[in-house]
Amino acid sequence: MRSPLAFALVGVRHATRTRLRAASSTALEWASPENRREAASRKWGRFGEDVVPLWVADGDALAPEPVREAVAEAARAGIYGYVDPSPALLDAVCAGIGKSWGSTVDSSWIRWHPGLIPALYHCARLAGPQGAVVVPTPVYPPFLNAARDCSQLIELDLGQAGGPLDETALRATLDRAVATAADGADVVLLWCNPHNPTGRVWRRHEMEAVAEACAERNVILASDEVWSGLILDDVPFTPAGLLQVDDLRLISITSASKTYNVAGLDVAFAVVPDDALRRRYLKVGRDQAEPTHAGLAALASILNAAGGGPCVLSPPDSACEMWRRAMVDHLRDNRDAAIAFIERECGDLVTVAAPAESTYLLWLDARKLGASPGLFLSQRGVYLTDGAAFGARGYVRLNFCCSRETLDVGLQRIGAACAEARSKM
Amino acid sequence: MRSPLAFALVGVRHATRTRLRAASSTALEWASPENRREAASRKWGRFGEDVVPLWVADGDALAPEPVREAVAEAARAGIYGYVDPSPALLDAVCAGIGKSWGSTVDSSWIRWHPGLIPALYHCARLAGPQGAVVVPTPVYPPFLNAARDCSQLIELDLGQAGGPLDETALRATLDRAVATAADGADVVLLWCNPHNPTGRVWRRHEMEAVAEACAERNVILASDEVWSGLILDDVPFTPAGLLQVDDLRLISITSASKTYNVAGLDVAFAVVPDDALRRRYLKVGRDQAEPTHAGLAALASILNAAGGGPCVLSPPDSACEMWRRAMVDHLRDNRDAAIAFIERECGDLVTVAAPAESTYLLWLDARKLGASPGLFLSQRGVYLTDGAAFGARGYVRLNFCCSRETLDVGLQRIGAACAEARSKM
Repeated sequence: MRSPLAFALVGVRHATRTRLRAASSTALEWASPENRREAASRKWGRFGEDVVPLWVADGDALAPEPVREAVAEAARAGIYGYVDPSPALLDAVCAGIGKSWGSTVDSSWIRWHPGLIPALYHCARLAGPQGAVVVPTPVYPPFLNAARDCSQLIELDLGQAGGPLDETALRATLDRAVATAADGADVVLLWCNPHNPTGRVWRRHEMEAVAEACAERNVILASDEVWSGLILDDVPFTPAGLLQVDDLRLISITSASKTYNVAGLDVAFAVVPDDALRRRYLKVGRDQAEPTHAGLAALASILNAAGGGPCVLSPPDSACEMWRRAMVDHLRDNRDAAIAFIERECGDLVTVAAPAESTYLLWLDARKLGASPGLFLSQRGVYLTDGAAFGARGYVRLNFCCSRETLDVGLQRIGAACAEARSKM
Repeated sequence: MRSPLAFALVGVRHATRTRLRAASSTALEWASPENRREAASRKWGRFGEDVVPLWVADGDALAPEPVREAVAEAARAGIYGYVDPSPALLDAVCAGIGKSWGSTVDSSWIRWHPGLIPALYHCARLAGPQGAVVVPTPVYPPFLNAARDCSQLIELDLGQAGGPLDETALRATLDRAVATAADGADVVLLWCNPHNPTGRVWRRHEMEAVAEACAERNVILASDEVWSGLILDDVPFTPAGLLQVDDLRLISITSASKTYNVAGLDVAFAVVPDDALRRRYLKVGRDQAEPTHAGLAALASILNAAGGGPCVLSPPDSACEMWRRAMVDHLRDNRDAAIAFIERECGDLVTVAAPAESTYLLWLDARKLGASPGLFLSQRGVYLTDGAAFGARGYVRLNFCCSRETLDVGLQRIGAACAEARSKM
């Protein structure tokens, strides 16, 4: 059953290196499966060629041309020792974040990280074994790992629907965390906005409720905002740093990693305005890897104009920003196609749990396929991330940051898997 | 007093990009200070142009041509998402390590890291707050940080001279660590071979004593071997994995980072042969950054022939190995020139503490320049790493992985600083 679809995937026309050079800098260009495997892609390399990979949060589009040029230029430097962000890059980061926050950001507030996961761990270490870490679920598994590995985990159940925040539950959960932490130990809320995996873009009143609830209890708010460049619907993004909440101890984390698919360049950063908190934050973070020359160069190329747009990192009218808008349009189309297909072909067995108003992740309720729907589907030629590690057994997360052709083959396989399951019922 | 020397440094002829392309693949090529600053170098960028930086362990030579080509090719892939080591790279790593160990190494034993420091932290976390971590001093500061941040630090005093190991002191210190650890908690010895900062290449009988002392006490031996490619004297390197010691729980860590100056590409790895230990090791290491595409590509280029030479990573007769030998010759000359200068011009105030039989680090006793000789020298135009963070106040570490011209300017400034100090006595 799998062979015709495998052939279909191989037959899809993808970007080649020759075509890339001639392409416009804002057009999206999709790498072929062969090119991705040659380039050591985890997403494409971990499974056989007969599996369509719609799992790990890694897109199949080539980076915007200015990013590719910056990475190539960094390679040409010829020395790959230790690097520091340049003053110009620090200024550009502060200008972009400052515009998004509507206030001045000092470069001393920036703490570089080699990625979101190390940053989450540093936040969780502020709580430590005697404190507590509140994690909203379902959630990207490293949130749960960080809380369990470094502290005491307290879960805040968001539901699976990506809907409005239950502010009463939020406050009750924070109270429970404060009660759990020993005297003098900190409580940290690891927030995710937009939320992975449901795609919820937290509304301004919700973000205010989160920030106020944290400030009232002296809870540290760690806000992961790495998905803020990929909002698909007409919903404004509210960075935590925009809020004017007295005494809020904030750690705001972002990166170009998801928007421009540069997670493998190991550059992210946290902004920590509070002096005392920042001193502690620096102290729990002495274990980490170095930022890379290529990663800093890519970030600089993304920020290469003054200002900074709504997604924090992209200046308006730059080539990268135009590329980003094209990507958002493509993702919206892919999302709509995926939702329509699932509802039409699989609705009795797999349902769309949340509307995916942002990110390139579609959260699906597949409980009728059994306790391990990820495994069931992977054995039928399409690999989605199983929800168990997100705290949601029976759910799966579908990554739709790929060419429409790849998505369609993946959807066909999900449809065929459902047909097979249906025939055995 | 500083200006003529600053001019002298600017006047030095360094490699230019045009010249690089024509150069032989095994010749050493030294980047100019301007090129290093343009390329965001931490070593050159953190201080003004009037300071000669002989501090952080980062060399000024361009990487060997095959490494530069591999990094450039990785950039051309155009997608910078998540990557995994290829099966071919895993095979090459296992072949190289296996040759060095004289035994078969299974690819499942490899745990990738984005650098040595994260690996040291993961080792220290195996001990945890209830266990103990033994650290030989003086030592590269992250060893001490990892022990203090994750566990209880027990110091083993090696002396400053880079001399033979006091095996009685070793066993007594391990006994003390075992007594300090709570029942059931582990003791970890963070070993460093060759040793940073003294350059000691531990002799085979010393490595056997270390391994046996660990095995007898069920202490985990974590052996950092990242400097093993830069042995300057006729002293054989003994990897911990070569030893046949029953029941040894070994974590062997290495990287191409120091030999080929690719620390900014974020690739290192640990080899953990023991199954139970490896399962635990993987569990304490869920927080770390990703290996980079460029870093994996660089490592693959270094390992591009079957086999593996005495420094673990370089196959014989490859371009990288010939480059490494040229580097070792250059470093030996630089070391000898630095020692001769210090003894001749500064001997009454600064003395060579250890013979630097390996690495590109010269450990100097500068106690007669005061408690902070690093600061004293930096204010006089030459920046060395102060020994305080190594557990050795009054000492400094000089990095001689630079062009002879840069080294000479740095030495002249040390000489002038000593003359100034002498005139005030």
